[in-house]
Order: sequence, then structure tokens, then C-alpha cells
Amino acid sequence: MNQQFLLAARPEGMVRESDFNRVSTPLPTIGEGECLIDVHYMGLEPAMRGWMENRADYIAPLAIGDVMRGFGAGSVSVSNNPSYPVGTRVTGSFGWQQHYLHRADAAPLQRIPDGISLRAAIGVFGVTGMTAWFGLERIGKPRKGDVFVVSSAAGATGSVAGQLAKIHGCRVVGITSSAEKCQWLTATLGFDAAVNYREPNWQQQLSEVCPDGIDIYFDNAGGELLNTALGLIRDAARVVLCGGISRYNATGPLDGPTNYFNLIFRRARMEGFIVLDYADQFAAAIDAMQPLVAAGQLRHADTVSQGFDALPGALVALFQGANQGKQLVCISAPDDPD
Amino acid sequence: MNQQFLLAARPEGMVRESDFNRVSTPLPTIGEGECLIDVHYMGLEPAMRGWMENRADYIAPLAIGDVMRGFGAGSVSVSNNPSYPVGTRVTGSFGWQQHYLHRADAAPLQRIPDGISLRAAIGVFGVTGMTAWFGLERIGKPRKGDVFVVSSAAGATGSVAGQLAKIHGCRVVGITSSAEKCQWLTATLGFDAAVNYREPNWQQQLSEVCPDGIDIYFDNAGGELLNTALGLIRDAARVVLCGGISRYNATGPLDGPTNYFNLIFRRARMEGFIVLDYADQFAAAIDAMQPLVAAGQLRHADTVSQGFDALPGALVALFQGANQGKQLVCISAPDDPD
Repeated sequence: MNQQFLLAARPEGMVRESDFNRVSTPLPTIGEGECLIDVHYMGLEPAMRGWMENRADYIAPLAIGDVMRGFGAGSVSVSNNPSYPVGTRVTGSFGWQQHYLHRADAAPLQRIPDGISLRAAIGVFGVTGMTAWFGLERIGKPRKGDVFVVSSAAGATGSVAGQLAKIHGCRVVGITSSAEKCQWLTATLGFDAAVNYREPNWQQQLSEVCPDGIDIYFDNAGGELLNTALGLIRDAARVVLCGGISRYNATGPLDGPTNYFNLIFRRARMEGFIVLDYADQFAAAIDAMQPLVAAGQLRHADTVSQGFDALPGALVALFQGANQGKQLVCISAPDDPD
Repeated sequence: MNQQFLLAARPEGMVRESDFNRVSTPLPTIGEGECLIDVHYMGLEPAMRGWMENRADYIAPLAIGDVMRGFGAGSVSVSNNPSYPVGTRVTGSFGWQQHYLHRADAAPLQRIPDGISLRAAIGVFGVTGMTAWFGLERIGKPRKGDVFVVSSAAGATGSVAGQLAKIHGCRVVGITSSAEKCQWLTATLGFDAAVNYREPNWQQQLSEVCPDGIDIYFDNAGGELLNTALGLIRDAARVVLCGGISRYNATGPLDGPTNYFNLIFRRARMEGFIVLDYADQFAAAIDAMQPLVAAGQLRHADTVSQGFDALPGALVALFQGANQGKQLVCISAPDDPD
């Protein structure tokens, strides 16, 4: 049988476990040219909230009763497709299920290169890592000496973006949600400073660690974090709009950044992007990042929840800021643990 | 004697005539290398509100008791400077006064080229026209077929920006504050459509005249106009942040654009600029605009209030949207009327 989580309800306010419906369906039969993937890890990300709501129109709509969408890593367990022999390690939009049927007419699977673990394949080398890379390279355009500030800095995207900015020679400051995460950012990842926005004077702390202002602000948060950063930008600053986790589960009217007007005084730019637009360049980015990871210049962390049933709760935990690095769920242990 | 308006108070809420203090001072004596300008026209612009408050840090601060800052057009009436013989027509930051003393060590005066009237020199060829030109060319980056929307469309900057966009082959829509101005934009200036934001269903009207969305939004308004436009942008849109007249006289907390998040879904950009950054390129822009004006492709209008004493009231009227095109005050009729 194939365990699946279906979307049971459009979320209102905070995502709830009851927004998903766990069902058990027969394993599909494998037709000509098809293969079956055992999903070992599922990656969780804030954007899922928008998919559940169909607010994110850059991706196909998700109907009530559909298998919840999600990017995962797995291996081919049964194959009628000579391109993907049993054991081939792959990533893809497998959804929240134990087994994914890859149809003959589907887009090609993404093979995981040798030397990259299943977990890294959907973390630092997956959609979140790509988001950090392309958001920084294409929108942030870092220059040596720039002051780079990132929100959700201990998350999968923020932690990678900050380290990449550091490699570019920026002074790097993270905004995160606990003293422990601040410590991890500075002591382990090499950030120059970190600020815990749950402390009452965090805005003052931020302006103190950016005494000359901000050249690049990489926003994963929205809300008061974005607004505060806009108040601190320097001339010709770039505000990279990547996400807005503070908005996703909000109830009632949303705030807009009143300090947007500072973009005029500072001749600055705020720009959004969708990482999937760069999909044809992911392989080149991974090639560039692999030596950085191998050399220990680019570290990545996972928070792994165990077992298929952990999926809904792990998504709720993500929005509560419980994760450090990539939030993953281990659905089934791979034969070759990594 | 020299009549002057001094800044008497930082404005709170709407600018009031009592924020200025009218004084009469002796005419300065003209030293070696100096010359005296008779100020014939003073241009009024929304940015003055920020100067009065010292909120605009891109320009030198203005103290209580200083002559109110303003860009004007005049002619040399007394001269000890052979570079500027009597009668030379010039523009500059002369301030709200009848006579301006140009000191020997001051930055050079801007001569008005032959064929350009005093009024046009501080309108379509002045700071507001330059704002339209550089905001469109450098930030908006128009392409043939783009849908271009501008707020404060009947103002000095908006009306020029819209016509320049039309010359670039854009479909041009103006947002303004009366049916009469809508009529002027479409019938006289050649805009493809115009929307009166004082009508209750203006947002629906705007989406109806932009059925495929907006490629360039040139914002002079802020507030609900900016927010509505952000909700209608297309992929790769450019939002040109030029001004925010709805904010300048606001009391109480300001809104931010909640729809900023659409910049992500639409992979779009919002960018501010300060026209004075392009001062060294003004002459080239004027050279490019002169034939357009001469050919009648680029029309401009003035709303002229008469007499020095009209200055404060004309500024208040500007914020009430009374003007069509450039709001000017005629301080003294020039010898050669234009």
C-alpha cells in the first residue's frame, strides 16, 4: 500500500495538521516505460503555505483531495524504464507519499550526482539552496565589502545565502528567532553578527551592527523585519524579495512596508524572483557550489523529523521556527544511509 | 527692497500658508564677480513638502528662518560678472524671493537655451521634466507594446512621462483626480485611457483598461494607488518610485503597500531614484526633448498663479490637485513675455 497525505482544507491562519488527510491507497502497477520511486526524504519549505492556498500562481494549482505537493529525494525501486535502473537516486516533485509513480511521458527525473547525499540534494543543492544562490547572484549582486543582511537566517535558504555572501566578501548579518540560532550563525557558519528579533530591542541591535546601513537585504520574512531593514538601506541598496514567512499564516489585514519610500531617498531597488525560473541553470549552480561544500566553506544543516506520519507536524514546526537549516522528514531510510 | 518668504514652521499635516513668513529685506549690494537675478517664475513641486520637513536628506537641510527653497527662472538685472551680462536668462535654486544674488564662488548658473521659454525652462525642460525623462529611461526602461500606467498623470512629471512612454510605443494609462483632467490626458495628450481615482469604482476601471496587467507603473502618489497598481503588475514589471504625494501631508500612521509581495510572484522590481543624480546628463536630455516639443509630440501645460504673494497659496493648491501640468507662480513679468 502507498501512504499519502492529501490536502483536506485550505488553511486559514496557521497551518494545522487537520489540513491534511492521511489515506492508504494500493501501490500503482508499473506500466511500460514507467518506474516507481521510494521516497526517502521530503523537504518542507514555507512556500508550501502558498501552494495549499493556491495563492502561488507560478506553479500548477493544488485541489482539495490532491496529494500534497512537495520536493523529495528517493531511489528507483521498480523500473520498466531503462533510463532509470533500480537504485537510481533522484529528486523531484514527488508529493507527500511513500511511493511516486514516474510515468513514461513525464518530464525527466533529476539524478542526484555522485558525492551528494539524498538530504543535501533537497537542501543545499535543492530548491532552497538554489533559491539562495540565484537570489543572491541575480538579484542581490554582491560586491566585496557590501553589508548583507538576511532574515530567517538560520533557515535552509537564509543560512546558505549568508555564507555565499560571506564568500563574496560581504559583511554578513543574520536575523533569526533565538539566541541559540544566533550562536550557530556566528560561531559555526561564520556570520559577522546575528540579531534575535524576539528580543525587544532587536531593531536597535540591528542598526548597531550595521552602523553604515545595509547594501543587500535578503528577505524571507516580510512584516516588521522587512520594514526595519528598508529603514536602514544605503544608497543603491538591493532588497531581494525571496519570501515572507511572517505573512503566510497571518490572519486579518496584512501590513505593507511603510518604509518603502526610503527606496526613493536611497535610490534603491526591491525585487522579487521565483527560483523555478532558473531551473535550466541549476546544474551549473550545483557545480559551482559543490567545491565550496567539499571545502567546508559552505556548511548546511538539517532538522530531520522521523517517519511519514511526521509530515504535517513538521510543517507546523517550520512555521514556528523550530528548524535549524533545512526541515526534512525521513519517510523511509535509504539502503545507503547518508 | 527684496520680498522673501521664509520657512516659519515645519508643516504638520497639510501645508498651510502660515508655514511661511513674508519679509521685506534690503536689496543686496552687488560685489565683484557677483550678479543679481530678477526671479520671474517660481516652480512649485510636491517634493517641497519634504524639504520643509527636512525629510529629504538628498538635499541640504532647510532651517526655520531660511528663504524657502525653490527652482525658478529669471534674468540677470545687475551684473559684475562678465559671464552673465544683463539680460541673460537663467534657471536655478533661487528660493522664494524676488531677487537672487549669485555670488562669485557659487556654482555656475544654468543658461536657458534659445528657443526655450522661461516657463518651459522650469517645466518640461526643468526638474519635473527631467524627472519624467530619467525615471522613464533609466528605471522604467520602456519597450514597444508595454502597458505604462502613471499616477498624478496630469501633473508636471506625470503628463510628460506618459507622453514620453507613448513615444516609446507603450500603451499609456493615466490616473488622475477629475473627469476634466482625464479628458485632457486622452483628448489633448494622447493617452490611451485615463482613470479618475476619486470615482468609487476606479480600481475596477483601472483593471478594465489594463486587462493584461501593467508592465511599468510610474508612481507619484503612493498609498492606495501604488497598492492597487502592485496588484496588477505583469511578469518582469518595473515600478518606478518617483514620489508619493498622498503621503506628504498625511497625519497619523502611513500605509505601506501590502501588495508588495506580488513583486515575488511577478518577478518584478520596484525602484526609486533622485533626479538630481542625473544633473550632468540634463543637457543631453533637453537636446533630445526639444525636437519632440517643437514637433508637438510632447505637449506641456502650466497653471500659473500671479504675483509673489501667491506662492504659499499655490503650494497648498498643488497638494489639492488644482493644477494641470506645471504649477508656476509668476513673480514678475519678464521683459520678453513668453
